[in-house]
Amino acid sequence: MERGFTLWFTGLSGAGKSTLANLAAHELRHRGHRVEILDGDEVRTNLSKGLGFSKEDRDTNIRRIGYVCNLLARNGVIAISAAISPYREVRAEVRALHTHAGFFEVFMKCPLDTLVQRDVKGLYKKALAGEIKGFTGVSDPYEEPLNPELVVDSSIEQVNDSLAKLLRELEVRSHIMRNGVRA
Amino acid sequence: MERGFTLWFTGLSGAGKSTLANLAAHELRHRGHRVEILDGDEVRTNLSKGLGFSKEDRDTNIRRIGYVCNLLARNGVIAISAAISPYREVRAEVRALHTHAGFFEVFMKCPLDTLVQRDVKGLYKKALAGEIKGFTGVSDPYEEPLNPELVVDSSIEQVNDSLAKLLRELEVRSHIMRNGVRA
Repeated sequence: MERGFTLWFTGLSGAGKSTLANLAAHELRHRGHRVEILDGDEVRTNLSKGLGFSKEDRDTNIRRIGYVCNLLARNGVIAISAAISPYREVRAEVRALHTHAGFFEVFMKCPLDTLVQRDVKGLYKKALAGEIKGFTGVSDPYEEPLNPELVVDSSIEQVNDSLAKLLRELEVRSHIMRNGVRA
Repeated sequence: MERGFTLWFTGLSGAGKSTLANLAAHELRHRGHRVEILDGDEVRTNLSKGLGFSKEDRDTNIRRIGYVCNLLARNGVIAISAAISPYREVRAEVRALHTHAGFFEVFMKCPLDTLVQRDVKGLYKKALAGEIKGFTGVSDPYEEPLNPELVVDSSIEQVNDSLAKLLRELEVRSHIMRNGVRA
């Protein structure tokens, strides 16, 4: 049976998590893998309605995503999470849950200055103006991964280069991609 | 790719849902399928902490189980739920969610008298004495399925006969078990 794993993106809002996650999902599906993206918003609707953005609620939300990723991954699926997941301890907890599946963490590193400049959704402007409370990176902490499997800096890399780098890393780690490509 | 489906047990506490679910899981795994049981208690811990037993909270809990079952099933897994799931409307909602996977509902029918007599966990005694509030079948409604794929009555059937009947039904419905057995 194909071995599944969880591909866990973490990083600030706007750092490119969803973009790279979607491109990777597309390419991995094309190569014959089963892939499921756990989109942060969809998960909040389906698994975490009623939870807010306090540390406790964020942790609960991330734990739930991690629980579902592990269920999928241990059944041969590549489960992709693209939630901010700001706290190191809960990310470590989610990783530890994967006793029968691989876990691959991608840190989407992007300087705050760049994110504030881009501000595609206009969220940083609002956060800096105090209109959004508890915004990760501005008024709420983000704890960088100490030892992620991959670091991607979208302020200096082209997204296609990041994708190629990610796929190469997944291939190199043959214990994760064991029985990799399927017809 | 193997087609997954959800095997959804519904019925009163003590009607034999978990027993049959576990036997079916064992046999289906033995036949080479990927199987995941979503145990009611485990789900309450991991996905529904904080939810109680009001109609609204029960519905939310069942919706979450259904959401995860569908994620697994559409990725080729046989997802098994063995929660009481007392309300018809939410069960219908969960079924409707399965647009890319099969859904097979097993109604564990067992007369209340028999359950009260058995009372393996002593819960019915407490519920009848009013020590447990909102106990399904005693002080909280259970809405029987109108058109389940299978009815099992554990007050008159031996569990091995029920298991054989269930497996036969799954095989007959080849649209559910398509590409069924894997080496």
